[in-house]
Amino acid sequence: MERTHNNGELRLSDVNKEVTLLGWVAKRRNLGSLVFIDLRDRYGITQVICDESLDEITSKIRNEYVLQVKGKVVQRQNPNPSLKTGEIEVEASEITIINTAETTPLIIANETDALEDTRMKYRYLDLRRPIMQEKLVIRHKITQTIREFLNNRDFIEVETPILTSTTPEGARDYLVPSRVNPGKFYALPQSPQLFKQLLMISGLERYYQIARCFRDEDLRSDRQPDFTQVDIEMSFMEEHEIMDLVEKMFAKVLKDVKDFEIKLPLRQIKYKDALGKYGSDKPDTRFGFELVALNDVFVNTEYRIFKDILGQNGYIKGINAKGLSDNISRKDIDKYTELVKKYHAKGLSWARVKEDTLEGPLAKNLTKEEINGLIKRFESNNGDILFIVSDINFEITCLSLGALRSELGKRFTPPKKDTFDLLWIVDFPLFEFDEDTQTIMAAHHPFTRPFKEDEHLLDTEPLKVRSHHYDLVLNGYELGSGSLRIYDQEMQRKVFKIIGLSDEDIEKRFGFFVNAFKYGTPPHGGLALGLDRIAMILTNSDSIRDVIAFPKNASAIDPMSEAPSEVSLKQLEELHLKIVKD
Amino acid sequence: MERTHNNGELRLSDVNKEVTLLGWVAKRRNLGSLVFIDLRDRYGITQVICDESLDEITSKIRNEYVLQVKGKVVQRQNPNPSLKTGEIEVEASEITIINTAETTPLIIANETDALEDTRMKYRYLDLRRPIMQEKLVIRHKITQTIREFLNNRDFIEVETPILTSTTPEGARDYLVPSRVNPGKFYALPQSPQLFKQLLMISGLERYYQIARCFRDEDLRSDRQPDFTQVDIEMSFMEEHEIMDLVEKMFAKVLKDVKDFEIKLPLRQIKYKDALGKYGSDKPDTRFGFELVALNDVFVNTEYRIFKDILGQNGYIKGINAKGLSDNISRKDIDKYTELVKKYHAKGLSWARVKEDTLEGPLAKNLTKEEINGLIKRFESNNGDILFIVSDINFEITCLSLGALRSELGKRFTPPKKDTFDLLWIVDFPLFEFDEDTQTIMAAHHPFTRPFKEDEHLLDTEPLKVRSHHYDLVLNGYELGSGSLRIYDQEMQRKVFKIIGLSDEDIEKRFGFFVNAFKYGTPPHGGLALGLDRIAMILTNSDSIRDVIAFPKNASAIDPMSEAPSEVSLKQLEELHLKIVKD
Repeated sequence: MERTHNNGELRLSDVNKEVTLLGWVAKRRNLGSLVFIDLRDRYGITQVICDESLDEITSKIRNEYVLQVKGKVVQRQNPNPSLKTGEIEVEASEITIINTAETTPLIIANETDALEDTRMKYRYLDLRRPIMQEKLVIRHKITQTIREFLNNRDFIEVETPILTSTTPEGARDYLVPSRVNPGKFYALPQSPQLFKQLLMISGLERYYQIARCFRDEDLRSDRQPDFTQVDIEMSFMEEHEIMDLVEKMFAKVLKDVKDFEIKLPLRQIKYKDALGKYGSDKPDTRFGFELVALNDVFVNTEYRIFKDILGQNGYIKGINAKGLSDNISRKDIDKYTELVKKYHAKGLSWARVKEDTLEGPLAKNLTKEEINGLIKRFESNNGDILFIVSDINFEITCLSLGALRSELGKRFTPPKKDTFDLLWIVDFPLFEFDEDTQTIMAAHHPFTRPFKEDEHLLDTEPLKVRSHHYDLVLNGYELGSGSLRIYDQEMQRKVFKIIGLSDEDIEKRFGFFVNAFKYGTPPHGGLALGLDRIAMILTNSDSIRDVIAFPKNASAIDPMSEAPSEVSLKQLEELHLKIVKD
Repeated sequence: MERTHNNGELRLSDVNKEVTLLGWVAKRRNLGSLVFIDLRDRYGITQVICDESLDEITSKIRNEYVLQVKGKVVQRQNPNPSLKTGEIEVEASEITIINTAETTPLIIANETDALEDTRMKYRYLDLRRPIMQEKLVIRHKITQTIREFLNNRDFIEVETPILTSTTPEGARDYLVPSRVNPGKFYALPQSPQLFKQLLMISGLERYYQIARCFRDEDLRSDRQPDFTQVDIEMSFMEEHEIMDLVEKMFAKVLKDVKDFEIKLPLRQIKYKDALGKYGSDKPDTRFGFELVALNDVFVNTEYRIFKDILGQNGYIKGINAKGLSDNISRKDIDKYTELVKKYHAKGLSWARVKEDTLEGPLAKNLTKEEINGLIKRFESNNGDILFIVSDINFEITCLSLGALRSELGKRFTPPKKDTFDLLWIVDFPLFEFDEDTQTIMAAHHPFTRPFKEDEHLLDTEPLKVRSHHYDLVLNGYELGSGSLRIYDQEMQRKVFKIIGLSDEDIEKRFGFFVNAFKYGTPPHGGLALGLDRIAMILTNSDSIRDVIAFPKNASAIDPMSEAPSEVSLKQLEELHLKIVKD
């Protein structure tokens, strides 16, 4: 189909050229005897001007018709600086209607007031909006940049199975009944974890995959049943070498896709320090409101609540919302109290700094010395407002204040668009204690390698053992995590034992995998990055749904294709299944 | 982990360098007081030589141990030309055992006599064989070459859903029960066909994806439940433009991956001609044994079988196995007869050319004139043997002889390794007649665009309508097929009607898709190539299993992970399912 130029490329230098354009009618206006058409394709918009001689055809043209336009490029009298082609227009000599269009249920423009349901039902029209196409293009650029980077470093992309068996991530698997093996099911992979480790045992040394993964989780607004991760694994590399490679890769993505220079090497913050200072293991450090430790201020306190906590070796920490006392109302404080309670804090103490002392209910319980101690520790001035949480549990103290910190940051010092704060969190614990089951669990997965210098604690104080696990964090989001893996069979068995697996459990859940370790396993490690989230952040989108071509809604439904749907009795019979009605 | 070089890169020019190598013990030999170790990694093998001073450690070393070796590069006295590093060896000064290995259940070498079951069960060891790694590397190169080619031409890679609804390919879908939508099922896509057409409606103009697809078919030896296709779609392109782009892409793959130059433009053979000449719509034209039309030789025949066939407007065709009479025994002929019968031919006539006439049972039924006619038509000489099939059906006549042609080609003129015969088959029929159901069906899928000049036949003689469908064929394999798609709603409805779909059927099966066509659909088309098959041919493999990292066996089972497997009652309950025992 003839086309000399796309709709984003004509410039003043093209004036007087005879051109042929293709595209969709974005807008059509009558101006006296002239008709103006904004012709749109993936590359941009070109204004087409039609005189009376084309009336017969222009009178039929409606929005979103597909046209071929032949004509001459002329200089525009009133340039439109918001268009790349805004200095020219095309005087049409011939217009062909290639296809017609009914009125679209949503307007094809960057700004939309269409409900998300409508946008998803007519996703093919939603994706016709230039802003949405741009998001898909950026996502494409991200993956190609990553591929190029890894290909240049001898990595091999290997496809791992989608129809497989359950993986050790612990979330719920999607199952696929096997027709030819009645009563048996494949599982869709939650990640290619086992396969990528097996590829290291195979000696492939450097693997990656832009891998589709699946988790049947109870849905939150920003989860998708199928999602994509950048999955990387390599042999014979130390933790710092892996991190070095990954941060260079991501710096290249930021440079190539957003023209943003990031300083390398990235900062590394220890897990404990991140919690202690930002109340989060994925801190956004682009704003302040850092957590302050207060235990020693209250070391001699008679205030019962703090005294109890300290008596149990607990934690008192706080945030100074500097200069914001007048901006934070009682109602806000109530809201913030609810917020920290959601994170299991018992309550939120607060005090306003006024006339060089503290005001508010907390102040009444404190001695003058404690008040001065607080003012000094918080480096506070009149007009500040202080928030304090105390708890016997370190994580609860930190995470609840961390949630408050995020809220304050978002409200009072929202970071600028297109600023990127990239850092590593390291030195994670190997295990965590599960309060529900009162058992020790793998903090991430049971294949993570412990610190050599902590190995002696495995038998005695396993919760103190640190691991070679590392998270890459961007703007307060965890982009991904990785680790060095255990490659020693004895160590692997020991870790399994600590998390309470019997030999039989090990055999049943990981039998073939553990067996593979017998035959010369190289030291290896890797990581996985959430591609959807990276694309979301780099496109300034509010939701990962905006960077997935055909996403599911919060009920795991695709309103366009209406998947999932009912199936025929014959299909169920073939699968040897029956639906059980509640 | 320190490593100065990989095991494939040391050369004579490196002599005297102190190096550190990592890798697996491929072989260990004692030679008097010296121990020779072949150290292997992904890149190759380096010979390591250890003197008595290392006895303590070398005595422990077994095959497939993981080692770090430090030493000096020295010139080898007896170079090994079969190794890239064969001119040097490394005199070890220090060896560290990084990991041990039990005796492997299969030998890690290019040649293997391990059963395929063993190879699949220990796939991680099978993939340690250099020849298998090479296959994965070539597969990787193929996909990256394709990506690079398409990226450079403004194509965008878009991921389409894996959890979706049924697609129109007609094979059986794999189903995935939805836990949060009880009684409903996702389907795994047989191809991204609908999504890629929707992306064209979105105005994306140029899409591709290396896409995972799924078909729950009754298994043949060379089918996989999940497989990969290179999926391409574009707007505003004519058939010849799409074919031009794809053949350039594939020529680049052959050049970059196999250093093979292919002449462009590719030959195009019409579907009817391919059947008539090669008995196949995916002919391997690297050998002869072409089919010869014989109807006019027998136009006045009294031989009952041929007379009957011609009386019913049938077909008589044959193959001359030139000079092979002495090589083809009666037993072979019996085998060939069985072969053509498998393709529904009623039988196989044959005759040996001897003393300028024909010998054999057929000859007795023919007149002298017919015998001379045959000899002339076949351009035959003494020592030839002629095979003839007659049938009222064109396809049966051609396809059965085509099967014989392949057999003769494979046996007597097997093509050389790494020769590539790439061509297009075009002008396919739009519909075909299904003998079982006695109905007209879409020959490929109902979205294929008919020839403009044949549209007048749609109502009267639909089986004569040709379509803009094209197949890319390599060495007798269909690599993929594509078509221009219908973009006119009226035409789409007409085609649906011809294949017997009611308005209700259309709405139910393709409702959202057909609806999308209302809103300004551009002319579009594309194709899909089977990546597994491409990789199989380009790696000279016998099976696509060899180019899939973790394949399933012929029972759709992965002998390594034992997928599919039984699931717990709890899982089934959560999915509202019950297994029905036969």
